[in-house]
Amino acid sequence: MILALAGGVGGARLAQGLALALPPERLCIVVNVGDDFEHLGLHVSPDIDTVMYTLARLHNTEQGWGLAGETWNFMDALARVGGETWFRLGDRDLAVHVERTRRVRACESLSKITADFCRRFNVLHAVIPATDQRLRTRVTTDEGELDFQDYFVRRRCEPAIRGLHYDGAHAAQPSPMLSELIDSGGVDGIVICPSNPWLSVAPILAIPALHRLVAGREVPVVAVSPIIAGRAVKGPARKIMNELGAGKDTAGIVAHYGALVDGWVIDNKDLSLSASIESAGYRVLATETLMSTPQHALALAKAALSLLDLLKGR
Amino acid sequence: MILALAGGVGGARLAQGLALALPPERLCIVVNVGDDFEHLGLHVSPDIDTVMYTLARLHNTEQGWGLAGETWNFMDALARVGGETWFRLGDRDLAVHVERTRRVRACESLSKITADFCRRFNVLHAVIPATDQRLRTRVTTDEGELDFQDYFVRRRCEPAIRGLHYDGAHAAQPSPMLSELIDSGGVDGIVICPSNPWLSVAPILAIPALHRLVAGREVPVVAVSPIIAGRAVKGPARKIMNELGAGKDTAGIVAHYGALVDGWVIDNKDLSLSASIESAGYRVLATETLMSTPQHALALAKAALSLLDLLKGR
Repeated sequence: MILALAGGVGGARLAQGLALALPPERLCIVVNVGDDFEHLGLHVSPDIDTVMYTLARLHNTEQGWGLAGETWNFMDALARVGGETWFRLGDRDLAVHVERTRRVRACESLSKITADFCRRFNVLHAVIPATDQRLRTRVTTDEGELDFQDYFVRRRCEPAIRGLHYDGAHAAQPSPMLSELIDSGGVDGIVICPSNPWLSVAPILAIPALHRLVAGREVPVVAVSPIIAGRAVKGPARKIMNELGAGKDTAGIVAHYGALVDGWVIDNKDLSLSASIESAGYRVLATETLMSTPQHALALAKAALSLLDLLKGR
Repeated sequence: MILALAGGVGGARLAQGLALALPPERLCIVVNVGDDFEHLGLHVSPDIDTVMYTLARLHNTEQGWGLAGETWNFMDALARVGGETWFRLGDRDLAVHVERTRRVRACESLSKITADFCRRFNVLHAVIPATDQRLRTRVTTDEGELDFQDYFVRRRCEPAIRGLHYDGAHAAQPSPMLSELIDSGGVDGIVICPSNPWLSVAPILAIPALHRLVAGREVPVVAVSPIIAGRAVKGPARKIMNELGAGKDTAGIVAHYGALVDGWVIDNKDLSLSASIESAGYRVLATETLMSTPQHALALAKAALSLLDLLKGR
């Protein structure tokens, strides 16, 4: 079984590619829940939904989140009665939050709810929240400490990041199905998707059992760099690298993950970095990493899987 | 100040007529909250919304509830993820429930929330929940005891009613603004709207302070019969009358309210009942009571107000 660690859009796209490359019994997509929050009394799981909608081919490709062909009558009406509208919830998307919230309150686990939603959306590959327990990314900025969505959506990542922590991560267990898989030794490769390393992947790796799995020497780990020629495809990764003094290109990302990763998939545009990454002890594969279509995502997934195969053969 | 006691559609229509006949400082619309319930984790107040939407001229006239031009994408998506769809919530309507729920949880009172919503919908007349406390209509049927909406919407009023009670009513106080108005002696007339006497008006009258006000001799009370020629314009009033042995026409309604009412507005079609109602000690005014347009509602409101004037002159 291959584990893919995924967050938002970039993660969802590579997850789609991996789901095209591997049958359901060979892939398990582990999704960040550090972005989850309570909003309008609803439990919102933005990354789970982005992955689920993308695999169901229901996602809004232009917007990067939410559903294609969405309508916004709820949001317009909410503005009229003075509700909070900084976090946009489409009319159809809202149903997922309402029903998830109902089930969470009825003490169903997030992983069971997600599995059921996926079944209803005809998503056959396993999409598993990293943990069923409460884990919340909090951002220390030059304007104080902020809840993740306050930083990310309400403040549009404007405050400069001084640090991050992942509330609840230390005490969190992986979701039961994930724990079983790990304990049974069923994981034979890990792909870290090109999601934001600090905002999307770090909350997953902050869960001790998942960190041990990735840090351990038993399972090869391939990461796909989210940075192409010194730029993030989407989102604040580059801005955050600046703020944290974490470099300005893929070399900074490589340094950030350090010994957690065994092999790197980098973009053709970063080929010049290849030799230095290899000399630091990594296997490197350069290819096209921009996933503008499912075909591109499939090709990138195959590249990552081939690198995993190489590493297994070491 | 005239108090109008109102429930669903019939009540909302006469409330609209009264709002056309009287300036905001002369009318206070007291609305049933016995229909309120928690659904999908939301606090839903069907009668308040029907009155508010009707006064705002945003109501769906064909459907009898909800907003005109409503969309149903939330509901369709909820069905897809396996949520409960027996109680239909439109995309725009939903915003009112979500924002109301947020404020109720933040310990704002239902009457304050309603006043704010009305302001935002440009409703100038006071729409006041009968109480800010919890009051829930429960229906004893031949199939056991049911929550109101389980009976009314989910079971479409099919079980036969054996009895009703109004949970929380005995301990309920009228909303603060209403209490003040009553205590200051500012009420100089009461109109019981042609809402269902058992389902819409009884929960209001089950609040001790409101019952005392209506039963007392100080303030004249006019009621508009919800039955025309032995039929309810809408809803299960006739079916319930049968089940409770409460007669089969406006005479049964008159008997039901008994000494609470001083004057009756009945339909022209029930003119034959006029003499017997008068001989029982009531003032009676027969007119067109079907409110198919706001003009009809205004005419009926004026008739009810003229009867109140007559009673004041007694």
